[in-house]
Amino acid sequence: MADRGLDCYIIPASDPHQSEYIPACWQFRSWISGFTGSAGTIVVTADKAGLWTDSRYFLQAEKQLKGSGIELMKLKIPHTPEHVTWITTSLPSNATVGIDDRFFSIGMVQYIRDILEESGQHLVTEADILGQVWIDRPEMPSNPVFEHDLKFAGVTRKDKLSSVIGMMKEIKADYHLITTLDDIAWLLNLRSSDISFCPVFISYCLVSLDQTHLFINPDKISGTIAASLANDRVVIHPYESISGYLENLTAGYTIFYAPEKVNHALIQSIPAGVKQKHGMNITTGLKAIKNPIEIEGLKRVMMKDGAAWVKTIHWIKKQLASGKQVSEWSAAGKIAEFRSANPGYQGESFHPISSFGWHGAVVHYSVTEEESLDFKTEGIYLLDSGGHYSDGTTDTTRTITLSTPDSQQKTDFTLALKGTLGVSMLRFPKGTKGFQMDIMARKALWDNGLNYGHGTGHGVGFWLSVHEGPQTIGTSASGYLNISLEPGMVTTVEPGLYREGFHGVRTENMTLVVEDMENEFGTFYRFETLTLVPIDRHLIDKDLLTREETDWINHYHQRVYNCLADLLTPEETSWLKEATQPL
Amino acid sequence: MADRGLDCYIIPASDPHQSEYIPACWQFRSWISGFTGSAGTIVVTADKAGLWTDSRYFLQAEKQLKGSGIELMKLKIPHTPEHVTWITTSLPSNATVGIDDRFFSIGMVQYIRDILEESGQHLVTEADILGQVWIDRPEMPSNPVFEHDLKFAGVTRKDKLSSVIGMMKEIKADYHLITTLDDIAWLLNLRSSDISFCPVFISYCLVSLDQTHLFINPDKISGTIAASLANDRVVIHPYESISGYLENLTAGYTIFYAPEKVNHALIQSIPAGVKQKHGMNITTGLKAIKNPIEIEGLKRVMMKDGAAWVKTIHWIKKQLASGKQVSEWSAAGKIAEFRSANPGYQGESFHPISSFGWHGAVVHYSVTEEESLDFKTEGIYLLDSGGHYSDGTTDTTRTITLSTPDSQQKTDFTLALKGTLGVSMLRFPKGTKGFQMDIMARKALWDNGLNYGHGTGHGVGFWLSVHEGPQTIGTSASGYLNISLEPGMVTTVEPGLYREGFHGVRTENMTLVVEDMENEFGTFYRFETLTLVPIDRHLIDKDLLTREETDWINHYHQRVYNCLADLLTPEETSWLKEATQPL
Repeated sequence: MADRGLDCYIIPASDPHQSEYIPACWQFRSWISGFTGSAGTIVVTADKAGLWTDSRYFLQAEKQLKGSGIELMKLKIPHTPEHVTWITTSLPSNATVGIDDRFFSIGMVQYIRDILEESGQHLVTEADILGQVWIDRPEMPSNPVFEHDLKFAGVTRKDKLSSVIGMMKEIKADYHLITTLDDIAWLLNLRSSDISFCPVFISYCLVSLDQTHLFINPDKISGTIAASLANDRVVIHPYESISGYLENLTAGYTIFYAPEKVNHALIQSIPAGVKQKHGMNITTGLKAIKNPIEIEGLKRVMMKDGAAWVKTIHWIKKQLASGKQVSEWSAAGKIAEFRSANPGYQGESFHPISSFGWHGAVVHYSVTEEESLDFKTEGIYLLDSGGHYSDGTTDTTRTITLSTPDSQQKTDFTLALKGTLGVSMLRFPKGTKGFQMDIMARKALWDNGLNYGHGTGHGVGFWLSVHEGPQTIGTSASGYLNISLEPGMVTTVEPGLYREGFHGVRTENMTLVVEDMENEFGTFYRFETLTLVPIDRHLIDKDLLTREETDWINHYHQRVYNCLADLLTPEETSWLKEATQPL
Repeated sequence: MADRGLDCYIIPASDPHQSEYIPACWQFRSWISGFTGSAGTIVVTADKAGLWTDSRYFLQAEKQLKGSGIELMKLKIPHTPEHVTWITTSLPSNATVGIDDRFFSIGMVQYIRDILEESGQHLVTEADILGQVWIDRPEMPSNPVFEHDLKFAGVTRKDKLSSVIGMMKEIKADYHLITTLDDIAWLLNLRSSDISFCPVFISYCLVSLDQTHLFINPDKISGTIAASLANDRVVIHPYESISGYLENLTAGYTIFYAPEKVNHALIQSIPAGVKQKHGMNITTGLKAIKNPIEIEGLKRVMMKDGAAWVKTIHWIKKQLASGKQVSEWSAAGKIAEFRSANPGYQGESFHPISSFGWHGAVVHYSVTEEESLDFKTEGIYLLDSGGHYSDGTTDTTRTITLSTPDSQQKTDFTLALKGTLGVSMLRFPKGTKGFQMDIMARKALWDNGLNYGHGTGHGVGFWLSVHEGPQTIGTSASGYLNISLEPGMVTTVEPGLYREGFHGVRTENMTLVVEDMENEFGTFYRFETLTLVPIDRHLIDKDLLTREETDWINHYHQRVYNCLADLLTPEETSWLKEATQPL
């Protein structure tokens, strides 16, 4: 920092592709601090270093930062850049602040620069310091790329490229720069294993009107795939050559990209004469609408994944009944084991939240072998877990009682469940957005002076990111405001309730938007629930349900039984029969 | 146009203050076309002229444009600038388009310029053509300004100015430019009658840290008011001198204003060295939270205004029962007459929607003596009407059956009423926005494949604009996204249902946000319904209501009776007694 004339250096937890899960080679923040939480930024000055993170990570950060000399700075509002405000108030007004702008979106750089300049401070954006001091830094992952079979993808790479190019012509763009890894994997019908829980490969993609440029380590591409790509007019370039390629774009052309996704460094390569247009990645909009083959695959996946769930719950109950130990860790392992027996299984779609008792109230609790609690019979158990399959991805949460629940547990569970039902049973007109319907998940809780602090639902990728935009169901309308829920979109519905120190409850299903009816008042849609896992009847207080809600659950359980019975052992089937009896 | 080298000229329906109701002197669009609808833009080229308006006004526009040579261009999506797209596709790519930028916000000018320049067309922003050709143009209104009495305003002008200046310091602004007339009237505790239905005066206001500059025709200000203003450090300048004053601002200072409200011409006067900051007018946020004196006034107003409603409904029923004629026009006149007997009455707060039978389905139907329908006994009557009083403003809609309603009328009325109740009965956490709760007004309709095409609620000014921001309840999250409903805010709740050619139903109340409870899950608010007018029991299908909804109505009716009985004649009281019986 002194060599570079920097008074301050910001180290974020991000990569050049704005990935949710970050490959080891770019985990600068974890490397320098030991802190492994998903959210948190470090600021280093000549005599001080601090980590800004939110309340989910206070305990973990205190433990992991011990002895590092880095101070825990508690964020008042999660996901806000309070560290930038700290810099403006703690450093002199002529201070120079450094970042490595490959790890910041162009929107974020502008935001930081504005705040600093308001205080007379100065931002240096090309400060690659950590790359030089991190000696034993892991290599960039170079796992092989493989084809996502058309029988699961449903649409060829060629047709996807045609759709993108058609939309580029509509918005008068000559190039579409795509830097988000799931968008590239979706577009090219390719998968790999560069990142945990997300079957993508590190690359950039530049679609032009006559060919597509894929910037990737060429060693990852087999001859067969290279030939197939060439046949679809996809040209391979070395990963690092993207900047040079952009530098040589001809003036007068227009390049289109998503400013909240593209890193600042990359954009500096674009010559001044090239016109830049901003908007959501075209691929993001297209991939959100699952095609009929994908929907068919997903429905198949829900049966085998549901069976793994039933086997797991049955196993837990049986173990405990026979006096054997079950822990958060072993239960999470067990569902992965059952899933792995399913055809097409490709691994977990995220790190499971397997939480017993008071751990259930730690909303983003991430189970580890060390912290794993053993089950006791008086508690309730919350499992949020999902799998990737070649024919689709799942994300399900169930809350399970291990004995007779008390009335508080039943009330809490049922009120949150009414939220899951409130969204699932909704009929809504074309054009309805997620922020409009979020309240249906919270109404029963609000009526009772309760609430939860996370979103209600997120899109789910198809053997891609388990959190996939653009649609969400939540209280916030930030992001792309005109994203409405359209037929073919897959979204989770996952209201919950958390009592610190006691328990957490949540029922999460994946749903598909389908057409419902059309009349002179417009076109109406509804949700079809995809997930097929029984909801614990013992936790339901039927007195809190309306007739329609009870009917919905009974009908749902009937469907769960019919879909799963054939995939289970006789013992499991008879357990499921009992578990899906009408309320 | 030829003299100025213009191929095209755009004539909007707006004034330099972005007013909802436009004074006659700025009604260029109505003058040139004869079209009087509130929304609609004219584009003139050398050989063609068109009026772009939305479906509400198609019939009216066809009638009023007849013989004008101006073609009706039907907007596909209301409130969108489809005329600008038409210009880019209909005129040559080097065409020059003129506007008078005093009538466009700076945001709108930028928007138009971007679209035109994309097509190679050119925008000239200072084309004041109509002012020269409109010979008998009315003078700018110069009605006297009078004080809004402190006993109704609740907070002195001096204290309001202190609050604004305090917030200017927080955001480091040296000047706050305010151009919206209701903001200025609120800030200075002054009223006038320059604009129909809105007691404001044409002016600009520039607040600095040590004094406030009011740009206004000085003839409007009496010596007494001038002295009082001077005492509060408010300096009066001629209205036209605002540009010159802005031109002389010292470089280095910061001016703050709302870019969607300030006209483009004005901003051109600001020297380059003055820093411009954008955001919502500080006054807009402050005036939205009604103070305790205002709330007290409003509650008093609701009683006298409710009495006028009861007298009107009773009068209609009595007239019809005795075989006398009642029309949309006479009923609207009658409520104004009853209101005018109330202390503090200052006039109607908007042009009433007084619509019988099929007219009720014409959502923005504006009654005129010519179009007024006579009442028949088999129909239902919708009246949306409000009054200004020194102690507050009202806006109420009731739907009244004139005989025994049919089951379709009852179902429609009750489903829409459930929407009014759905919002009114809501408990919601601090931070909840209007777009989150809109669905509560629509859920019962959506369940039945029905919907309505207007917003659910709007803020209401205090003896100011009946439509007052920033808060709204609606499907859209555009505008200021972080506006949540806070205690002291007054908002209408007005879901409806409209069957073209048959009838329209709507129940509109004004509500006040109040604190409800606080616990470890946060602070919760609820609505207190302010409006006190009976809801027609004959139109309610009790089978469609939940127990809680029925209780709410019965409790409400009890309150209406208790509050209004003393203000009525014995005959009216006994009618109200009957009308407020429990369901």
